[in-house]
Amino acid sequence: MDKFLGYRCSLCQCEYAPTQVQYTCPADGGNLDVVLDIEHIRRFVSPEVIFNQSEASIWRYLPLLPVDEPGFEGTPFRRVGWTPVFESARLARPLGLSTLWVKDESRNPTASFKDRASAVVVARAREIQAEVVVTASTGNAGAALAGMAAAVGHQAVIFAPKTAPAAKVAQLLVFGAQVILVDGNYDSAFDLTIQAAQEFGWYCRNTGYNPFTAEGKKTAAFEIWEWWEKTRRQRPDLKRLNVFVSVGDGNIISGIHKGFKDLLALGWLDQMPRIFGVQSTGSAAIYNAFQAGNEQIIPVAANTLADSISVDLPRDGVRAVRAARESGGCYLAVEDEQILQAIAALGQAGIFAEPAGATSFAGLVQAVQRGFINQEDAVLVLNTGSGLKDVKAAMQAVSEAPIIEPSLQALKKHLSQ
Amino acid sequence: MDKFLGYRCSLCQCEYAPTQVQYTCPADGGNLDVVLDIEHIRRFVSPEVIFNQSEASIWRYLPLLPVDEPGFEGTPFRRVGWTPVFESARLARPLGLSTLWVKDESRNPTASFKDRASAVVVARAREIQAEVVVTASTGNAGAALAGMAAAVGHQAVIFAPKTAPAAKVAQLLVFGAQVILVDGNYDSAFDLTIQAAQEFGWYCRNTGYNPFTAEGKKTAAFEIWEWWEKTRRQRPDLKRLNVFVSVGDGNIISGIHKGFKDLLALGWLDQMPRIFGVQSTGSAAIYNAFQAGNEQIIPVAANTLADSISVDLPRDGVRAVRAARESGGCYLAVEDEQILQAIAALGQAGIFAEPAGATSFAGLVQAVQRGFINQEDAVLVLNTGSGLKDVKAAMQAVSEAPIIEPSLQALKKHLSQ
Repeated sequence: MDKFLGYRCSLCQCEYAPTQVQYTCPADGGNLDVVLDIEHIRRFVSPEVIFNQSEASIWRYLPLLPVDEPGFEGTPFRRVGWTPVFESARLARPLGLSTLWVKDESRNPTASFKDRASAVVVARAREIQAEVVVTASTGNAGAALAGMAAAVGHQAVIFAPKTAPAAKVAQLLVFGAQVILVDGNYDSAFDLTIQAAQEFGWYCRNTGYNPFTAEGKKTAAFEIWEWWEKTRRQRPDLKRLNVFVSVGDGNIISGIHKGFKDLLALGWLDQMPRIFGVQSTGSAAIYNAFQAGNEQIIPVAANTLADSISVDLPRDGVRAVRAARESGGCYLAVEDEQILQAIAALGQAGIFAEPAGATSFAGLVQAVQRGFINQEDAVLVLNTGSGLKDVKAAMQAVSEAPIIEPSLQALKKHLSQ
Repeated sequence: MDKFLGYRCSLCQCEYAPTQVQYTCPADGGNLDVVLDIEHIRRFVSPEVIFNQSEASIWRYLPLLPVDEPGFEGTPFRRVGWTPVFESARLARPLGLSTLWVKDESRNPTASFKDRASAVVVARAREIQAEVVVTASTGNAGAALAGMAAAVGHQAVIFAPKTAPAAKVAQLLVFGAQVILVDGNYDSAFDLTIQAAQEFGWYCRNTGYNPFTAEGKKTAAFEIWEWWEKTRRQRPDLKRLNVFVSVGDGNIISGIHKGFKDLLALGWLDQMPRIFGVQSTGSAAIYNAFQAGNEQIIPVAANTLADSISVDLPRDGVRAVRAARESGGCYLAVEDEQILQAIAALGQAGIFAEPAGATSFAGLVQAVQRGFINQEDAVLVLNTGSGLKDVKAAMQAVSEAPIIEPSLQALKKHLSQ
């Protein structure tokens, strides 16, 4: 695979060959960026070649990914990504925006953005002949790994805290993953996963640890770019795009930033979109660092109903801060109440988001109020996961339905109230 | 709209003009089939025209639907259908089959097959300038109507029994539907819906009542046909296709049968696939009629964990019996235990199905055991809904996960057991 040159540490900038390291920087523990051979890629591919493909998944961007053709056509593994971008006047109007798009990641095979990362990690695992992939997770990342592994007949092991909701654990088990609950919190599951991977030669997918998760996640940037290039021809008045992303451990926003950086390096993109990170005020370690104007990620005691972005210590915080800073965006923090309102707003446009998925829209609302976004700005909001993942939260987002006698008379009386 | 000629009663064969009736046959209450002008369609369209479109939804079959171009591009309404067909050796092998496909309807906007019907009904509502669409439902049909109506900014009213799970009701409310719970069972909600529609001039979507639901559902047959035509070229050894469908009120199987009949009438299909209907033994009114060799649908006291196909009186039973009989298929009835096993089996291929969705696969397992399906038969199984719709059932389909101390030692001990 000539396109994959190695890794570069996001902290010390040390470079490593593909076989030299596997996870984080041996010098300082920093997250590693995958380094691609941009010249090589440019020689063999062009935007036109990519645009004219029939592959309706992340694999249309294979030339820009550090894995070879992964096979498994005709499985859910080949149907990750290429998610729809919806345009909603109904959402745009109350905000005074002329255009607003929502990219709906709930349409992925296991109904969240995380399938992008898991698919690429599973492809990598097969290349390096790792028979087992392991991750710590109770939520979307675990479901995505379990689902992608099942799709290609690969083994997955998931470590979760024993407090994980039984319903979420059930999904992992249905996909045939080996699930082990630990008598401890998420951090102890995270650490045990790393130890177990080392001990048994398993391949560790942990987010903010394995450099290939961001490579999978960057495909969302590629899709936004391709969609934007095609859209802009119809809308020459639109200038720069503004992308809103919910942020928990910081790996999604870092991955999206990496995708746009790859495109800039290739010369296929004129200008980086502005990237806005949105956190819950109850889990705002990265927001705090951004506001403080530094890259120092200080853990918090996370407490938010948006469980998928509820994180004490974000494992990809430094790159996440940079994603907003280097792109000219910023960070916002929103209350749980605003997240619930965002669920209801998106629902009325026919999009059912989980709390973490709606957080990005709540951030946009605040950004408009604070004047960061103006009427003529082009805005794309990412919904990272399906509302079916957390129906309890949805129940908090709406009022209760009335109960009537099953008669026309009772109905008329109710409607006249 | 020249292609839409009117309706024909499925019982007495009486014909009606498009404006003459709206729901069931005034003579005998039978379900109405939509009658299309086959000659007209054939004059203006061909399979090649359809195959070469870029529209990735049910709307690629617009020339075969009794509605005009519905608009609303860029909304979830335009992303219904065109669901993936997965091929799984992992599922085929234990059954001794050489090929097995699963068409995954959980990838629809509201995660079930019902979006097909709701999209076409909403399109029809707009054409006849009905401002409100109403339906009785607690489950997938209600969610689909609420979601499709929200996507195009249309009003939806949903009547549900007050015993409906709060979580399911929440989804309807998030989509902005007006939800009214009635102090009664599903049948009383069904009846009140019809009365309310009449009284207020609302358009009624009730399944097995509104003829346009089957027209939406027939698009699944069109997709299977298009996929099969393209697949068969690569697999000339495969002869006739066998399609397995879960059956509750009978409207999905009737819709699929209608789709294949349209294609036969157009001369675009040589041979009708054999259609197998699968019911739960706890809700087997249509199965019973098929076994008795008649079309007499005798209500049962339904009791199955597969809630989406749990029906006392199937409202589209007669056409459902015919779908299997006229296509050379048959009906099967499976136990809840077999449905749970089917959830686990599909999960291990990366497909997460709700109980009703997995019922079709449970039926295939039985059909193989009973010799109805042989090794060389081509089989397609329909998964009608996402497992995220009923995570409780998934919990019953798998064993519990073990709990260990968060240490490598405890893990080793566990793994060596």
